[in-house]
Amino acid sequence: MIESLRVTKGRKVRLAARSTDATLGLTDKAQARQELEKILADISELQTRLHASRAAGVLVVVQAMDAGGKDGAVRGLHGGLNPTGVRVVSFKVPIGRETEQDYLWRVHAECARKGEIVLFNRSHYEDVLVVRVHEFVPKEQWEKRYRHIANFEEMLADEGTEIIKIFLHISMDEQRIRQQERIDIPDKNWKFRAGDLKDRERWDDFMTAYEDAINKTSTPSAPWYVVPADRKWVRDVAVATILRHHLRQIDPQYPPNPEVVPGMKVL
Amino acid sequence: MIESLRVTKGRKVRLAARSTDATLGLTDKAQARQELEKILADISELQTRLHASRAAGVLVVVQAMDAGGKDGAVRGLHGGLNPTGVRVVSFKVPIGRETEQDYLWRVHAECARKGEIVLFNRSHYEDVLVVRVHEFVPKEQWEKRYRHIANFEEMLADEGTEIIKIFLHISMDEQRIRQQERIDIPDKNWKFRAGDLKDRERWDDFMTAYEDAINKTSTPSAPWYVVPADRKWVRDVAVATILRHHLRQIDPQYPPNPEVVPGMKVL
Repeated sequence: MIESLRVTKGRKVRLAARSTDATLGLTDKAQARQELEKILADISELQTRLHASRAAGVLVVVQAMDAGGKDGAVRGLHGGLNPTGVRVVSFKVPIGRETEQDYLWRVHAECARKGEIVLFNRSHYEDVLVVRVHEFVPKEQWEKRYRHIANFEEMLADEGTEIIKIFLHISMDEQRIRQQERIDIPDKNWKFRAGDLKDRERWDDFMTAYEDAINKTSTPSAPWYVVPADRKWVRDVAVATILRHHLRQIDPQYPPNPEVVPGMKVL
Repeated sequence: MIESLRVTKGRKVRLAARSTDATLGLTDKAQARQELEKILADISELQTRLHASRAAGVLVVVQAMDAGGKDGAVRGLHGGLNPTGVRVVSFKVPIGRETEQDYLWRVHAECARKGEIVLFNRSHYEDVLVVRVHEFVPKEQWEKRYRHIANFEEMLADEGTEIIKIFLHISMDEQRIRQQERIDIPDKNWKFRAGDLKDRERWDDFMTAYEDAINKTSTPSAPWYVVPADRKWVRDVAVATILRHHLRQIDPQYPPNPEVVPGMKVL
């Protein structure tokens, strides 16, 4: 599964050619649920080892169109992630001092420390996505950012951060269904933003911006994954599988402790 | 269960008289597991409502002797807590600038924002516990801190923070067993600290310090709970029950959204 979702340098991704509703070999919700439980149990054990060993920091960037399932994907990992050692950072429209610094400043400040898993709900990629589509800065400025981002992530990886970037890929029709639910279901009203409908009108421009961002910044040490996300149960298994894969790559081991004297008795 | 664990102003707690191995009506591990799953599902729903409504911040202080199960108690809540909207802060020995500020400074900085649940693994209470027992500051200084802490927590509560303070109560014998495991089981070696054996020698002094801290700072708006913690499965159910109780007190509701126009169609 992993290889089919990863974007490899040299094989440019075309989002229109990538499925949004593939089942990735899963048969139904119930089976996916079972599969997910198994993966989450593995992640739980790997996370404890990561925490004990401080072998690496893990940074998971989650990006998607509105209603693409960013919150849901993070929630899908609960049960696997011990709240100690995981941190979710949601990046909103920059405010205050954030607007007076470069766009990577606030992101850098939130990066994972050794032993920690950090999940970015939105990220510095917004600075080449919404910022590009709505021309919040001129082209001369945003077009340099792909290189900044690749360089920044290369440094992070060199210094011990495992970087995983996930694009939750939904269809325009699935977005319509979900946005409509936010209007029709009272308990979901709080998620609705009128501005999201404006972005929906620019769907194709966003897809072009996503393709550019993904193609220009997917590297072996900071790969992008395009996850079919119309079916939430497929999405959750895919995201958990990707995280487990990377934790296994790190292969954290319980560290020896020089303070332990074998045979020592506690009185 | 809640009332029997809560420390009420006017009925001073004596820790020696409080059970460390009560089962609180639970029959065995399997039944406790089932019970826990139910409570975690309730917490999950309540947390989503809390996040949506920003009705309050929730601050859970977890304190215990070494090997008392602070990490385990936090881990016991996973499955219930969506990583978005929960944050665990582990307070260690103060370093750098922390040593140049008052002892509440670093604590204040990490307090819960509205809609967020923050779990403190150790806290400002260390400043009247280990600091008192080992006389890191003179008595004239630490004895004023109970009042500071009560005043600080009163302000937090008045401004919209739900405060829950949990003491995980283990027996000296249970601590011995757990510390011994950290020596004997290689995968647990990393948790062992020789200094913890020194604190064990001062057990009675720590109990006196805990009693004072609990009795002097348990208030209706920032109550202490003494949780029997020799049995991990009892501890986990008790902690989850306490958290659920307080979330229900807050009773967060999905907020209305003025941007939603009923009948509106997404195109």
